[in-house]
Amino acid sequence: MTYDLVVIGAGPGGFDAAVEAAGLGLSVALVEKDFLGGTCLNRGCIPTKLWLGATSAVEELHNQTRMKVASGEVTVNFAALQSRVQKHLAGTRKAMGMQLKKLGVELIEGTGRLAGDHQVAVTSADGEKTLAYKKLVVATGSRPIFFPGLEPDGDCVLDSDMFLSMESMPESLIVVGAGFIGLEMAQVAHRFGAKVTVVDAMDRVAPLEDPQVSKALAGVFKRWKWDIRLNERVAGVVTRDGRALLTLNSGEQIVADKALVAVGRGPVTKGIGLEEAGIELLFNQIQVDDHFLAAPDIYAIGDANGHIQLAHAASHQAHYVALHAAGKIETPYAVGPVPSVLYGSPEAMRVGTMENEAFLADFDTTEVSMAQLAANPMAQAHAATQGFVKVVWSNGKVVGVTAVGHDVSRLVTPAAMIVHQGWTLNDIHSVIFPHPSLDEALLMALKAERKKVQ
Amino acid sequence: MTYDLVVIGAGPGGFDAAVEAAGLGLSVALVEKDFLGGTCLNRGCIPTKLWLGATSAVEELHNQTRMKVASGEVTVNFAALQSRVQKHLAGTRKAMGMQLKKLGVELIEGTGRLAGDHQVAVTSADGEKTLAYKKLVVATGSRPIFFPGLEPDGDCVLDSDMFLSMESMPESLIVVGAGFIGLEMAQVAHRFGAKVTVVDAMDRVAPLEDPQVSKALAGVFKRWKWDIRLNERVAGVVTRDGRALLTLNSGEQIVADKALVAVGRGPVTKGIGLEEAGIELLFNQIQVDDHFLAAPDIYAIGDANGHIQLAHAASHQAHYVALHAAGKIETPYAVGPVPSVLYGSPEAMRVGTMENEAFLADFDTTEVSMAQLAANPMAQAHAATQGFVKVVWSNGKVVGVTAVGHDVSRLVTPAAMIVHQGWTLNDIHSVIFPHPSLDEALLMALKAERKKVQ
Repeated sequence: MTYDLVVIGAGPGGFDAAVEAAGLGLSVALVEKDFLGGTCLNRGCIPTKLWLGATSAVEELHNQTRMKVASGEVTVNFAALQSRVQKHLAGTRKAMGMQLKKLGVELIEGTGRLAGDHQVAVTSADGEKTLAYKKLVVATGSRPIFFPGLEPDGDCVLDSDMFLSMESMPESLIVVGAGFIGLEMAQVAHRFGAKVTVVDAMDRVAPLEDPQVSKALAGVFKRWKWDIRLNERVAGVVTRDGRALLTLNSGEQIVADKALVAVGRGPVTKGIGLEEAGIELLFNQIQVDDHFLAAPDIYAIGDANGHIQLAHAASHQAHYVALHAAGKIETPYAVGPVPSVLYGSPEAMRVGTMENEAFLADFDTTEVSMAQLAANPMAQAHAATQGFVKVVWSNGKVVGVTAVGHDVSRLVTPAAMIVHQGWTLNDIHSVIFPHPSLDEALLMALKAERKKVQ
Repeated sequence: MTYDLVVIGAGPGGFDAAVEAAGLGLSVALVEKDFLGGTCLNRGCIPTKLWLGATSAVEELHNQTRMKVASGEVTVNFAALQSRVQKHLAGTRKAMGMQLKKLGVELIEGTGRLAGDHQVAVTSADGEKTLAYKKLVVATGSRPIFFPGLEPDGDCVLDSDMFLSMESMPESLIVVGAGFIGLEMAQVAHRFGAKVTVVDAMDRVAPLEDPQVSKALAGVFKRWKWDIRLNERVAGVVTRDGRALLTLNSGEQIVADKALVAVGRGPVTKGIGLEEAGIELLFNQIQVDDHFLAAPDIYAIGDANGHIQLAHAASHQAHYVALHAAGKIETPYAVGPVPSVLYGSPEAMRVGTMENEAFLADFDTTEVSMAQLAANPMAQAHAATQGFVKVVWSNGKVVGVTAVGHDVSRLVTPAAMIVHQGWTLNDIHSVIFPHPSLDEALLMALKAERKKVQ
């Protein structure tokens, strides 16, 4: 048979594309070489959130203890946590498998490869089979990347996949790369009592965020006695005598039980017949048009096209290509504001344009307004008052919101709506925010005096 | 001098009316007999949230312990917490006072009373003075009410004000009234280890909410071994031998260290010259038109008019009357959906129309769609998976959202926007929700199969 749609990769993008296409009546095959759910479920967002959730009492207690309001001790059993994580992942995969079955999506285990005109070859332990398709979605995702000298050895030098599979939490940890992945994992290690060192070649943590966000995060981490090394290039990191030995370009050496290398992720696009099919790769990213078409009848979505490395961006693209493949939509993909979140405590969130970006784009009409979390009773209640909400305006409309501090992830969905709808000052009173709530920090920031960006 | 605006009562409604009017250039006097911030700040929402925040580690630890992932003990020092609460309230009042000063609002301490044409008499320890006004805002708020036999004695029978002023948390507590106030305070007592008994004359806890919300809440409370007595009328509650003795109509008696009576709140509208000024009271609520005018040039907002007993509703009304008094708006007040939240863990939230209300209003076009929290990874991460999100639709538009479970308060602001904007199925994909997030439970509920209400 010829499938209406074949999807390679069952991460958030591929899985959702398969499900939505099947829901629209297409015959669908979904090819996956590993586990349903891809990186996000099995080796990324979800295990990290389960770690953060399970250890959240540690941080809550710590904050109240600092205020001399509480005392005590919380011990998280890492082995029990890991087993709970695995159980949750297995349960989720099972539910996903049932959903595919219910919708009539054929799940084909093996490695998919483009193999000639409208055909995909799937290789597995059972041999190779060929699937014919009318349309193809490539959703092969991404994997950790490394600079020379930073390659993980699986012993004491780990990538994020290996870190999430550890059997015990190290007592000391070096994190190379102060992006969201590294910072979330470092927060968990910290909650387990690990001594944390963070190294980054940039001049601040969370270097893709608003500089004030970086500063606020670093302020909290330093209070936690993290050793934060910025503007530092790493010459190499290796396992030596059962520990991780990191050498900076300066020659200085740092030793810890483990080193986590989290310097970035790159698309998985090599060796699956893309180039042979005439598809253009740039920095391994599949080049697509504004319908996510990389070639006639071949879509590429999610991390593989390199647009935005976020699960919910992949899912949103999946929704579009399912509709497009089913002939239900013709107009180009319109990406809305894509929220991004650093979970933990503190958290950071961003949606839309940041102050520095808006300023570069149109400094004449860019303004910002801010509110400090210290003024918010919910931040006070959790004794976690460092942080702020910043609203970026352009021509009198909200174009971006960014925030840092306790629980600010809860601002991201309303902020995404506000940015998407381009609120003006008049819109602010159209919605009643609950009192008290951390959400009011967003309202305060919206109402605050706007200042021109200098 | 004649003030453009005199405001009686410096709670959320009165304070905001004064601030906003001053911001619009009016000369304003604000009369308050007690503390800036009113009930909400001093004897209501804010102290309760500080209690819940300070004890949140107890509940987080409890949930993880139940999963055998964590162990330990968290002890909250109630005296230290109370002192922190008082410090926070004093700090907030001070900041509010400075804001008034900065805006040129004259704060007049004393009890305000309508005293003849466009005049307010203010009585304080210093004597009486008279203020002349062009417009008046009555924002006198509410106080706890009691049925006969349920009057607090300040010894072992307490109202919510007294409960919040306790010097130690009782080891056992009877809560009369299973509304949000009673349930939040009972949750705090539970976290301090108190044995909790809840008594309500209605057939379910949180009787104003969706019946399924009540059921989910009761399920959690029962797991906590709360003694929940529904359909029970209370004959009386008294202090006897240093403990609270409650007698049910059935004759059964219940004894605990303290009893909290939280059966409702009623407007503070008597003895301040309202009726003498020809203002109509119904059940003590000041009757107002759709400009919040109770009489020419006399507005009444907040709990005093009895529309909605919520601080943010009062603030929203305050915004309107400030504009109206300043001549900036003529159109009638348009109330948007007013969110309500039960904080704690579990939480409950509601905005817009509930299923049973929509069904009564127009059962032909009413549908509901639901998502269970158990499917959400963030609920799983916090080992608190009981609960759901329910979306109520009418004629294909979202008219209400209600939810119960861990952290669902974070859904209320986006839900308020969605209800206010009357989203249809097409709007759902206009905004990208972050993954993973509890917010996705709302998205799942929006996307779920809609069923006609039976």
